[in-house]
Amino acid sequence: MAIVVQKYGGTSMGSVERIQAVAERVGATQRAGNQVVVVVSAMSGETNRLLDLAHKLAAQPVEREVDVLLATGEQASTALLAIALQEKGVPARTFQGYQIRIDTDSAYGRARIRSIDGDSLRGALSAGQVAVVAGFQGVDAEGHITTLGRGGSDTSAVAVAAALKADACEIYTDVDGVYTTDPRICPAARKLARISHDEMLELASLGAKVLHIRSVEFAKRYNVPLCVRSSFDNSEGTWVVPEDAAMEQVLVSGVSLDRDQAKITIRHVPDKPGLASRVLGPIAQANIVVDMIIQNASSAGDTDLTFTLPKTDFRRALGMVEQTAMDIGAQGVVSDTEVVKVSVVGLGMRSHAGVAARMFDILAREGINIQMISTSEIKISVVIEAKYGELAVRALHRALVEEAPATEA
Amino acid sequence: MAIVVQKYGGTSMGSVERIQAVAERVGATQRAGNQVVVVVSAMSGETNRLLDLAHKLAAQPVEREVDVLLATGEQASTALLAIALQEKGVPARTFQGYQIRIDTDSAYGRARIRSIDGDSLRGALSAGQVAVVAGFQGVDAEGHITTLGRGGSDTSAVAVAAALKADACEIYTDVDGVYTTDPRICPAARKLARISHDEMLELASLGAKVLHIRSVEFAKRYNVPLCVRSSFDNSEGTWVVPEDAAMEQVLVSGVSLDRDQAKITIRHVPDKPGLASRVLGPIAQANIVVDMIIQNASSAGDTDLTFTLPKTDFRRALGMVEQTAMDIGAQGVVSDTEVVKVSVVGLGMRSHAGVAARMFDILAREGINIQMISTSEIKISVVIEAKYGELAVRALHRALVEEAPATEA
Repeated sequence: MAIVVQKYGGTSMGSVERIQAVAERVGATQRAGNQVVVVVSAMSGETNRLLDLAHKLAAQPVEREVDVLLATGEQASTALLAIALQEKGVPARTFQGYQIRIDTDSAYGRARIRSIDGDSLRGALSAGQVAVVAGFQGVDAEGHITTLGRGGSDTSAVAVAAALKADACEIYTDVDGVYTTDPRICPAARKLARISHDEMLELASLGAKVLHIRSVEFAKRYNVPLCVRSSFDNSEGTWVVPEDAAMEQVLVSGVSLDRDQAKITIRHVPDKPGLASRVLGPIAQANIVVDMIIQNASSAGDTDLTFTLPKTDFRRALGMVEQTAMDIGAQGVVSDTEVVKVSVVGLGMRSHAGVAARMFDILAREGINIQMISTSEIKISVVIEAKYGELAVRALHRALVEEAPATEA
Repeated sequence: MAIVVQKYGGTSMGSVERIQAVAERVGATQRAGNQVVVVVSAMSGETNRLLDLAHKLAAQPVEREVDVLLATGEQASTALLAIALQEKGVPARTFQGYQIRIDTDSAYGRARIRSIDGDSLRGALSAGQVAVVAGFQGVDAEGHITTLGRGGSDTSAVAVAAALKADACEIYTDVDGVYTTDPRICPAARKLARISHDEMLELASLGAKVLHIRSVEFAKRYNVPLCVRSSFDNSEGTWVVPEDAAMEQVLVSGVSLDRDQAKITIRHVPDKPGLASRVLGPIAQANIVVDMIIQNASSAGDTDLTFTLPKTDFRRALGMVEQTAMDIGAQGVVSDTEVVKVSVVGLGMRSHAGVAARMFDILAREGINIQMISTSEIKISVVIEAKYGELAVRALHRALVEEAPATEA
């Protein structure tokens, strides 16, 4: 008998009717001869409602108790789904993070799973029950409730699937798979039947919010067969799988656009060792995640340092950088929030040169100036002026995906 | 250093502003040199909101999961209060039922506390923290979440106070104490400074919703000094205490009115052994709590059986009784929902006869007909026509409380 782990996000659990639809699908999966574990998120809107309450009580609510607060959202979801399942004649039992138990570190609000004991879940499955598991939460060594951060329920699902050596982990969401690019920007975008873990990791880190990045890491490490599907229809979805030879033949499997970007440059800094850490240290300490970093030494013995970061952290970071600039005698700070990041991702880049050159050429033909460049083995990202974002995505998608250039050997 | 347990109900926790007011009071209690444990209910309205969701999914939602669902309300309250406390500089830590742990039986929705391990709470108190405890919930032997029933947070508070041998257990609510009768009915009602456990038990069972009845039983059994106070002002409240000689001098300490009453009579039943159990057995099995029961044998060899029950259960019970009446060849069933129960309670009745006679006389003078009578050692209850309820309360309060008759030896 196969073990299937299904994860339903907040939108899929967003109303009584949707919870009933989830129960219907779960029941059908069990009747088809599977043992089913369901991992659920809080009903959509609930996490924000709770956070609002916390923030009305404190500008910086104590993180340990915020986790206690937020964990109630997923707990309520487990109970509601179990009630709906039993109403449809499907035996079900709820499990909270501490009951399983899902051990994490104590980094409240962004805890990482250390281990999962699958025994209690196996017991429920053997008894013919659907196990309904609260996503997003765990428990630390002292027994405090922890949460895994936004999107963490994906990671809960993959980790549970790994612990149970499940035959499949299906992530049900409000999109029906992973696309070559955002179909709202580019109608020619098509759904991928399969994508490699590494490509999915790059896309996730680029802001394509289909899967929580940790969940993909987990799936890769523990070899969990992972599938992204729609909870609103029965289409096939996209499988996230280990890479194979056929995948390497595809130069570019996706083009992504990340609008949540801001750019800060500190100008004419005396070029001495330790500069970057002097500028970026305080920002890291404030838990702001910097994305691209570029440093250009000039012949005159000074340098410009530019970095990008999420728009939400821009104001805070700018204040810090302006302080640092004064301290170290820089000439000034310039910043820009009207920028976006456009990226192309594909396993084929690993073995084939020339993708970067083609990308820059395509952008140049559209008259789009490149402000920053960053590359990895299977990804090229550029920062450009925000107003050109959609145009760049369409041009790159057309040339690199739709016209699917044959990979030259 | 004294240990004080404070319990705040849903109204006291009903908004961000009220939670801040609770935090203020808790902080002041700690600064006054006490170790403080706070037991909280769900924000007002939250339990009903969650129950509504469950009932939209199932007419009879599975009780075990309803408890999982409802327990989230108290959990959220603990986190919000802990956040508010820390914001005011008061160190605080939350404890859910399973973390303490509060062991209960497995009667979901109406579980009874078996034991409480006070060690983790003592640890927090010793560390200078306020312990914020989720009321209303516990955990059974299998680790399932349980809840104690409406008002159960009172019982949580008293049980925690008993486990810690606390110096006081203060129940903060939206009334400022226990009154001789409902001041909305009788403006001459006055607040009692003290009331005995037994009197409080009678008043609680009569529908005066100041305290959960199990909490009073706990307080009596474990000798917990219990106080009912308002969370909206600083008035003294009412202490519920072991009885003493002075209390016995007071004939009647309270007059109560219970409007949630309905009456069913099954007429001309053949008078055979087992009759009452034949009629009332199915009703008990349906978890309907019957209050007064009266059986009158006639000289003709048959009998009438009358009982009262809460209005909410009336329709269901009536259907059962009509079925039974047919089965056993009774002549018919009559029912009445236009009745109320008026009761007088006082320790003095134990040693002084004649209170019942005086009560009946007072009602007769007002032209009020008594339909049923029930007595305990320290209580007399009568069922009368609903429209006379307030009149009866005022007349009895005036004669038996305000004019405070000297107890004749």
